Amino acid sequence: MLHIHAAELQRFMKEVFIKVGVPNLDAEICAEILITSDLRGIESHGIGRLRMYVDRIMNGQIEAIARPETVKETGTTAVIDGHHGIGMVIAHQSMQLAIDKARKFGFGSVAVRNSTHFGIDGYYPLMAVREGLIGMSFTNARPSVAPTFSTQPLLGTNPIAFGAPTDEDFPFLFDAATSIIQRGKIEVLNRENKIANDGWVIDEQGNSKNNPQDILEDLVSSRSALLPLGGEGETYGGHKGYGLSTMVEILSSCLQSGAFLLSLTGIDSKGEPSRFKVGHFFLAINIENFLPIDEFKLNIGSLLRELRAANKVPGQERIYTAGEKEYLNEIYVREIGVPINNNLLKEILYIKEILQLDSLPEVGKINS
Amino acid sequence: MLHIHAAELQRFMKEVFIKVGVPNLDAEICAEILITSDLRGIESHGIGRLRMYVDRIMNGQIEAIARPETVKETGTTAVIDGHHGIGMVIAHQSMQLAIDKARKFGFGSVAVRNSTHFGIDGYYPLMAVREGLIGMSFTNARPSVAPTFSTQPLLGTNPIAFGAPTDEDFPFLFDAATSIIQRGKIEVLNRENKIANDGWVIDEQGNSKNNPQDILEDLVSSRSALLPLGGEGETYGGHKGYGLSTMVEILSSCLQSGAFLLSLTGIDSKGEPSRFKVGHFFLAINIENFLPIDEFKLNIGSLLRELRAANKVPGQERIYTAGEKEYLNEIYVREIGVPINNNLLKEILYIKEILQLDSLPEVGKINS
Repeated sequence: MLHIHAAELQRFMKEVFIKVGVPNLDAEICAEILITSDLRGIESHGIGRLRMYVDRIMNGQIEAIARPETVKETGTTAVIDGHHGIGMVIAHQSMQLAIDKARKFGFGSVAVRNSTHFGIDGYYPLMAVREGLIGMSFTNARPSVAPTFSTQPLLGTNPIAFGAPTDEDFPFLFDAATSIIQRGKIEVLNRENKIANDGWVIDEQGNSKNNPQDILEDLVSSRSALLPLGGEGETYGGHKGYGLSTMVEILSSCLQSGAFLLSLTGIDSKGEPSRFKVGHFFLAINIENFLPIDEFKLNIGSLLRELRAANKVPGQERIYTAGEKEYLNEIYVREIGVPINNNLLKEILYIKEILQLDSLPEVGKINS
Repeated sequence: MLHIHAAELQRFMKEVFIKVGVPNLDAEICAEILITSDLRGIESHGIGRLRMYVDRIMNGQIEAIARPETVKETGTTAVIDGHHGIGMVIAHQSMQLAIDKARKFGFGSVAVRNSTHFGIDGYYPLMAVREGLIGMSFTNARPSVAPTFSTQPLLGTNPIAFGAPTDEDFPFLFDAATSIIQRGKIEVLNRENKIANDGWVIDEQGNSKNNPQDILEDLVSSRSALLPLGGEGETYGGHKGYGLSTMVEILSSCLQSGAFLLSLTGIDSKGEPSRFKVGHFFLAINIENFLPIDEFKLNIGSLLRELRAANKVPGQERIYTAGEKEYLNEIYVREIGVPINNNLLKEILYIKEILQLDSLPEVGKINS
């Protein structure tokens, strides 16, 4: 497996965004959010998605220059229309606005419509955490998840992200799709030539599907669907994953009259690529409104340490809390570089070729 | 199966609370919250839990007269110490405070410590919905759920409730434990002489347990544990249920320096009953800060109708949205009465006897 230094990969991604017309500062934000995903080991949402952004900017589905517009604002709230700019830039600005409002009023919340894919959901709570606040972020996404008792992909993978500062070297960060697995995970399996487990994805008869290439194609044509967290039916709580996903879809669309469910396919009635119209919802909570920040940090740190000290299932060596594995991964990846498999290398070289970039990523920075 | 008219059962429960020293208006709130659970078909949290409240008030674990104290307050936030009063009364007052704050400032949030069991989580968002707002409610609970890779019950069933008004006859209401099943469900299985499914509860070796009586006893002695939503390990997203449960535990304790995890057993170091020290977190969102309420109601109604119209798994007749089954159940139960099985009837008669109530519930109102 090849590895590329994170800083080098980040620089490459920034140049790619600039090359397709993204302003310098915005390109920096995009590269920073994507590399954060690779550093945290969420391979589905980093360099592996770069080509998707390039393709969509080049075919006009995403505007290279983001011009988010505030359509309504109060002390604690705002509604923003993204006008189809890059989701990462729109989301970054929106979360910052929520943070500023929370500093003043205790709570800050921003609802966004007409945005596009915004990278890892967990990045935005981390912005709040860096300023000593609690952050939450929600987004809808292309239809891929079936409601309980349905085979039709209607809901997005609709993640929930929640971050809070602690007295440790790293924050608590929960960031997860409300489906068992997400589309990006299927893409990773595809690149790694692996198959999907039974009970993750169903076909039109409700039976499991396993071939990732088939799954990705069939998600678009509604002939396969991801299952909500908790799985099929209600026996193991599938209706809970479905309900959480619906909650995220509501927060990401109904507060700003944006698109939801089948309106998010990115394909128009003639089968041509169209706008994605993704919606987001950001929330920031000022801890100091409740108690001194250091008291909060000690409380949460103590709670997390008690969880990690729990009795283990025989054969298990360690119990983690949310965000811990990702923190450990970041230390490791900063040291050895971002792993780049053959299929991913092909995508990087493809991007390099179509954009006529000559020196990126530098060969000398690729380590085997 | 016997049935008792809901109004009659509600009146009985109110009299029981008054008999154990609860003030008249507070008793009314308690009976209203418990009957809401029975009406919605959540048998685990209604009349079936009445004896638990009676026992705990009589043994001093719960103060009959609730005296919640506001220890810190800002425009959008408040911290309340429940001083071990009845959770339902404390929570009702706290949610109302969050609603009042949201009306003024867009968001209202109240963090509560030293409370006790507050009935169904979903009741409190419904209070917000009745006033045209979005409501959320979180609570921790006695340790019963194991972290991923652990066999030790540390987390509570830690539910998430989210309610929003719609343009339909009933609101969207998500209300679910972040475990696959909750303790109350095991109690119901026990009363019905049924067994638990594989993959719901594990023993100290990580193997499934099925006998509900054993499970209930062993949860207290940490020899069995409920699994988080998503099940054991990470293959089907068990770490997501675990992470969501941790998020709820954080919101329910760290913002008010309240108790968490093993401090919530209700048993002291000598094995004697002690305070429960449950924590809650309430959030109200004023929709009008984002857009006109009727526009929101149309948006969410359209979204929910699109979900219900999805293609069905072969053999399935209907797709529901969260809160719909419970709404339909309420219509049915108001008509035929609350179902009372033999074990539940014994508990009602037991309560009647120890409290020396002579005419409740009236025999004539019990229908077979």
